[in-house]
Amino acid sequence: MEFDHSPRAAEYIQRVREFIHERILPAEQEYYAHLAEPGRTWTQPPVMEALKAEAKREGLWNLFLPEEEYGPGLSTLEYAPLAEEMGWSFIAPEVFNCNAPDTGNMEVLARYGSHEQQETWLKPLLAGEIRSAFAMTERDVASSDATNMQATIELDGEEAVVNGRKWWTSNAGHPRCEFFIFMGVTDSGADRHQRHSMVIVPRNTPGVNVKRMLPVFGQLDEPYGHGEVHFENVRVPKSNIIAGPGRGFEIAQGRLGPGRIHHCMRAIGAAERALKLLCERSLSRVAFGKPLAKLGGNADIIANARMDIEMARLLTLQAAYKIDKYGVFAAMSEISQIKVVAPSLCQRIVDQAIQMHGGAGVSDDFPLTALFGYARVLRLADGPDEVHRALIAKYELKKYQQ
Amino acid sequence: MEFDHSPRAAEYIQRVREFIHERILPAEQEYYAHLAEPGRTWTQPPVMEALKAEAKREGLWNLFLPEEEYGPGLSTLEYAPLAEEMGWSFIAPEVFNCNAPDTGNMEVLARYGSHEQQETWLKPLLAGEIRSAFAMTERDVASSDATNMQATIELDGEEAVVNGRKWWTSNAGHPRCEFFIFMGVTDSGADRHQRHSMVIVPRNTPGVNVKRMLPVFGQLDEPYGHGEVHFENVRVPKSNIIAGPGRGFEIAQGRLGPGRIHHCMRAIGAAERALKLLCERSLSRVAFGKPLAKLGGNADIIANARMDIEMARLLTLQAAYKIDKYGVFAAMSEISQIKVVAPSLCQRIVDQAIQMHGGAGVSDDFPLTALFGYARVLRLADGPDEVHRALIAKYELKKYQQ
Amino acid sequence: MEFDHSPRAAEYIQRVREFIHERILPAEQEYYAHLAEPGRTWTQPPVMEALKAEAKREGLWNLFLPEEEYGPGLSTLEYAPLAEEMGWSFIAPEVFNCNAPDTGNMEVLARYGSHEQQETWLKPLLAGEIRSAFAMTERDVASSDATNMQATIELDGEEAVVNGRKWWTSNAGHPRCEFFIFMGVTDSGADRHQRHSMVIVPRNTPGVNVKRMLPVFGQLDEPYGHGEVHFENVRVPKSNIIAGPGRGFEIAQGRLGPGRIHHCMRAIGAAERALKLLCERSLSRVAFGKPLAKLGGNADIIANARMDIEMARLLTLQAAYKIDKYGVFAAMSEISQIKVVAPSLCQRIVDQAIQMHGGAGVSDDFPLTALFGYARVLRLADGPDEVHRALIAKYELKKYQQ
Amino acid sequence: MEFDHSPRAAEYIQRVREFIHERILPAEQEYYAHLAEPGRTWTQPPVMEALKAEAKREGLWNLFLPEEEYGPGLSTLEYAPLAEEMGWSFIAPEVFNCNAPDTGNMEVLARYGSHEQQETWLKPLLAGEIRSAFAMTERDVASSDATNMQATIELDGEEAVVNGRKWWTSNAGHPRCEFFIFMGVTDSGADRHQRHSMVIVPRNTPGVNVKRMLPVFGQLDEPYGHGEVHFENVRVPKSNIIAGPGRGFEIAQGRLGPGRIHHCMRAIGAAERALKLLCERSLSRVAFGKPLAKLGGNADIIANARMDIEMARLLTLQAAYKIDKYGVFAAMSEISQIKVVAPSLCQRIVDQAIQMHGGAGVSDDFPLTALFGYARVLRLADGPDEVHRALIAKYELKKYQQ
Repeated sequence: MEFDHSPRAAEYIQRVREFIHERILPAEQEYYAHLAEPGRTWTQPPVMEALKAEAKREGLWNLFLPEEEYGPGLSTLEYAPLAEEMGWSFIAPEVFNCNAPDTGNMEVLARYGSHEQQETWLKPLLAGEIRSAFAMTERDVASSDATNMQATIELDGEEAVVNGRKWWTSNAGHPRCEFFIFMGVTDSGADRHQRHSMVIVPRNTPGVNVKRMLPVFGQLDEPYGHGEVHFENVRVPKSNIIAGPGRGFEIAQGRLGPGRIHHCMRAIGAAERALKLLCERSLSRVAFGKPLAKLGGNADIIANARMDIEMARLLTLQAAYKIDKYGVFAAMSEISQIKVVAPSLCQRIVDQAIQMHGGAGVSDDFPLTALFGYARVLRLADGPDEVHRALIAKYELKKYQQ
Repeated sequence: MEFDHSPRAAEYIQRVREFIHERILPAEQEYYAHLAEPGRTWTQPPVMEALKAEAKREGLWNLFLPEEEYGPGLSTLEYAPLAEEMGWSFIAPEVFNCNAPDTGNMEVLARYGSHEQQETWLKPLLAGEIRSAFAMTERDVASSDATNMQATIELDGEEAVVNGRKWWTSNAGHPRCEFFIFMGVTDSGADRHQRHSMVIVPRNTPGVNVKRMLPVFGQLDEPYGHGEVHFENVRVPKSNIIAGPGRGFEIAQGRLGPGRIHHCMRAIGAAERALKLLCERSLSRVAFGKPLAKLGGNADIIANARMDIEMARLLTLQAAYKIDKYGVFAAMSEISQIKVVAPSLCQRIVDQAIQMHGGAGVSDDFPLTALFGYARVLRLADGPDEVHRALIAKYELKKYQQ
Repeated sequence: MEFDHSPRAAEYIQRVREFIHERILPAEQEYYAHLAEPGRTWTQPPVMEALKAEAKREGLWNLFLPEEEYGPGLSTLEYAPLAEEMGWSFIAPEVFNCNAPDTGNMEVLARYGSHEQQETWLKPLLAGEIRSAFAMTERDVASSDATNMQATIELDGEEAVVNGRKWWTSNAGHPRCEFFIFMGVTDSGADRHQRHSMVIVPRNTPGVNVKRMLPVFGQLDEPYGHGEVHFENVRVPKSNIIAGPGRGFEIAQGRLGPGRIHHCMRAIGAAERALKLLCERSLSRVAFGKPLAKLGGNADIIANARMDIEMARLLTLQAAYKIDKYGVFAAMSEISQIKVVAPSLCQRIVDQAIQMHGGAGVSDDFPLTALFGYARVLRLADGPDEVHRALIAKYELKKYQQ
Repeated sequence: MEFDHSPRAAEYIQRVREFIHERILPAEQEYYAHLAEPGRTWTQPPVMEALKAEAKREGLWNLFLPEEEYGPGLSTLEYAPLAEEMGWSFIAPEVFNCNAPDTGNMEVLARYGSHEQQETWLKPLLAGEIRSAFAMTERDVASSDATNMQATIELDGEEAVVNGRKWWTSNAGHPRCEFFIFMGVTDSGADRHQRHSMVIVPRNTPGVNVKRMLPVFGQLDEPYGHGEVHFENVRVPKSNIIAGPGRGFEIAQGRLGPGRIHHCMRAIGAAERALKLLCERSLSRVAFGKPLAKLGGNADIIANARMDIEMARLLTLQAAYKIDKYGVFAAMSEISQIKVVAPSLCQRIVDQAIQMHGGAGVSDDFPLTALFGYARVLRLADGPDEVHRALIAKYELKKYQQ
């Protein structure tokens, strides 16, 4: 056992941290100011492209991919602390070309895509020239149960006919979003795990209709956006199906492991940021003759936050380690565990930071309500807490069943 | 002891409930659609005036005032369940001319106002012709400690010179908001409880500057709004001081008792609405072959919500009873207790309702994020939870101190 | 609505409180010293008989029975606060002849017993001359589900043959315990609610075997005791069946309502006692230059305890009111609600009182571990929390189902 | 970073685990049966000596000491998982000569003891021939604040005169307990950290008076026992002072780091044992047609327990790693963090296991009440949760203070 990062990981942490604190955080104001101008909600602020170029130049690019052909080839465990650093800024992930769901899409195309799919879609994604989306969750059913999925992908000669009403399709608002990976049922009579397929649907294909952008606690997360996207008799070449029909479930499962590590580490970074704001406020505001930090249970809140963050981080790093060493399927319980723990603690600490800020906390003078919405959504995205708890219990009880 | 409402109270509950469900809730769409039109953010939707006229005609008007000369003269205990009913719709309180902070301002003017003040400001408020605001909380200090207040009211001959940077001044955005009751220090050398005064500041007085409307989790609560309002050398007649200099603290204390009952009962109504949405969703969505209500700990969440609501309601009604029978000062601990309990339970149940709705819960397809922001603010408004807990403990420990 | 006790109730509260504080609490030491002598574990301390005589003389006797022929005829709502007072001392209930399960047995015999049963068993119970037990819970099955019951009562001519392995049969150790009310299946083929019967089994009947006394966190609660009692082919006259075969479930349900009010009010009294100890300790112990009450989150603990107690008491009194006014079956959800709330809060506050006492809290220098065991058991007795929550949710969801 | 144990640690884990499950657990019944015989409460059951001999023979002896001269020389991190294994049985630590407070006393003597002290006291302790106790906590003051300490060690020529009323002196009841390490004030005028000293007091010295054994939730933990021990003018040679006067605080601090690792890891082992019992019961008991594991929120309880244990273990192992690599003083916050987390989670899971067992859970048919008392005490021993939280917050806030 060894609880320090490897020298290589430590060096990347240092470089990413400095890049974020010295270049990204100071650029946030310019970024948001650009978006706030009339008519620019769904455009790419130029400063983002400048930051991306800089990050690429410095080799801080595609850090999430373990395959060495695409970047530095960091392991899941080595990348995890970098994701935490990126959790300090909503715009940092894109700067490093590590933004979800592009990351998951790149993983899928790198591992399951045909040569043609890789040339057409993976290459420009890796270069940061285009963006992509992942259309899985559906509006009309509880998507926590994959067997509820209503979307269909019908084979018709050399074409696949795509139908479905998807929502929470992140990136759907981005001006450079060029395609969706769409998940649907190809064979409803097949075994539960061979029923689904994933297919690439270029954004401009007839029948693709982005109905609206969904707000999260009133925020649209522009220019990325979370779309409600309807697909009506959308026809694409059959060759757009990834890895062939029936492999959707398998691909989804492999995709989710590292993706959840990334989500959770970013949530931990966001929690650290909220705790920093909380502590600073608790020291600078005075009531009844003392800084708030000295009043009532406020010190307990700070102590509990520190403990919860430390534990969630260790749990997540351990899960990353297990994915690297034993594979995603050996780490299923661990991956569900972090998915329950990290978003919840982030929500809790942000809520406490809001309380410490008084009225300022619920306004937009601080990033706290944005962090709150971010954490709140994460308790639902990639499976709600409830589904993960059920799975963890199932694994636990298995030890005692014959 | 008697846990049923009096026949008179029961009748009013029935009438208000029917009015809300049959007329207000169905009118909400028209109301919000009006506001959503370009340029109409800070206007009064005509349907509100129609509803007000109807409510007035039916005698459902100024229900909050115990004085019979202004309305039906309901006690705090009799009005409390009506406030709960109004908690089901954000626009209901105004319909019945029971909207905070107008209610508190009316109470203050009815009890402490001069004849002239009553003629000029109370009468049109009672008639629902104008709106008003209450400028107490300050941006630059922890307002939970009244001794932190920086705003000043200086006497200069026959005039009072008002200075201060206030925020969270609700109603400041309303097109009919005609005046502020402003709280400031008149004599910083006086005893802690005689230091402050309240003064009426007409909105159009030179030096009054509404700097901006503060968002609550991104919502502006238009057309009411929560203003950051700066007062710079604002001059008003000395006769605008309510009840004379040095009585601000006394007036504030009397005002807060019933006001907190109203807040808490509305929060309980909001919690009931959230629980209804939660239950309905839990029955209509199916996963893993069962309605969500049958899965995992969801039934426990529902049971806990029911218990928490019942208890909070009883605690609040008991506090109302004590205010009526023994006076606000005999019910100080009880008033703080409900202020801790009711907003927190509302936030918790709304959060759980969001979880039960999945992605829909954080969008604006349901009123849940709006309810969340409402509940969240209430844990800060009128004193944060922390200050109330400290006060409750102080009262408890007093029993054991010599 | 009226939150003050009636003058009659208030007078009884005053008398019972004085009796407890002036006579029972000072006699506890003598009582326990008697039991601590070798060989006296399962004997009745003489001071108990003296106290009983005194209480009877003063008319503080059989206070729990609403029927006027047996005592003052207090309603459930009037008796409830007296049960709270009795919660301050483990021996108080017996002093007033209000000790469970005798109370429930008296209710059953008063309402369902034949004339002969009443003459033989009810009269001496009412006089406090004998004690009784209630044999329902079984060791080998989850007794939270009544359909699991394995005990049988077979009719054989004029006799009933009783078989079963019962445990947690309270009072089974008492030297004056003269009979059991035994619950078993008479007709396993009948409808779920007509399957069970209750039968009176005199203690000395052949085949009755008190196997052992069960400890609760190491305490035997002598001289009452909680017995594991085996019944093997125990023969009693058929006339010992209460109200005839098949009515066991009905009787049990009616019995449980008021009994749960009593349990919960005693738990609230016990919680008040723990909170008093907690507050006193927090004021008398000093660390880091301050009384513990001023350190960290201790004031919050005190405030939360006060709020939780107030709310639980109101909820319980409201349930009592509903039982009196609308009957047990109209108050089923409310009765389950208090059963979840009151024991849990008692356990929580006792645990916090232990923490405030440091090492002394877990020793027997204070009654805290005894109170803990008492509260802990109550979360299981008369149905575990889980079963009650499920029932509350069921009632809640019914509002939304067609 | 590396989350697997080293091969050497893994081998020891395997050997200790097997020894516990194959030899100690099966011997528990004999052990407790011996103690249960009249007059044997404070004797050493022969089976313990047999087990000790066996463990020694197999090299599973003095595992806790990092110094190679005394045993295998395992690091804190390597020993930690062995302590977890020992948490499965209350008697396991002594079998491996790893029982507190002997472990801490051995550490102190090994590092600070004079040659003579080591010959006289350390050697027989290392050999398991004698036992020892640590007299620090005092009855009359809040011992969480070291400056409250009232005990004194006065120098009088070549003697030290020891006075003080200590309690919670564990091992004081053990028949082989031969000496106390006593902590007291030698120079009340000195700096806060140079005021105290530790002195060896042989048990039979005149003036040492073991007043009574303190129960923990009614359990005496025989034959170890927790004594209230009064020292009245006890005279020992001045050379019994460890490392010279004024170094008590320094020694105590160094002692506490690894000791808390051991405590917390044992608590985690105890929690694992409770979770195993909980799971097994949840699968074997049936209500409403299903095993309890399938009912309501029970699966959530199991999932939460698994997550909490994983996180607490990682946090503790990380703290152990930091102690080894950076020293106790670099790990002060981490050590306090585990001390808050591990005992609390153990208490919580044991409480939930009790609930899952119904009435059986509070009886002594399962080890759950004993585990509860053990966990409950641990939230007080070595500093109550509150003191540790305050320290964690202090370290956290330091980051933001100039």
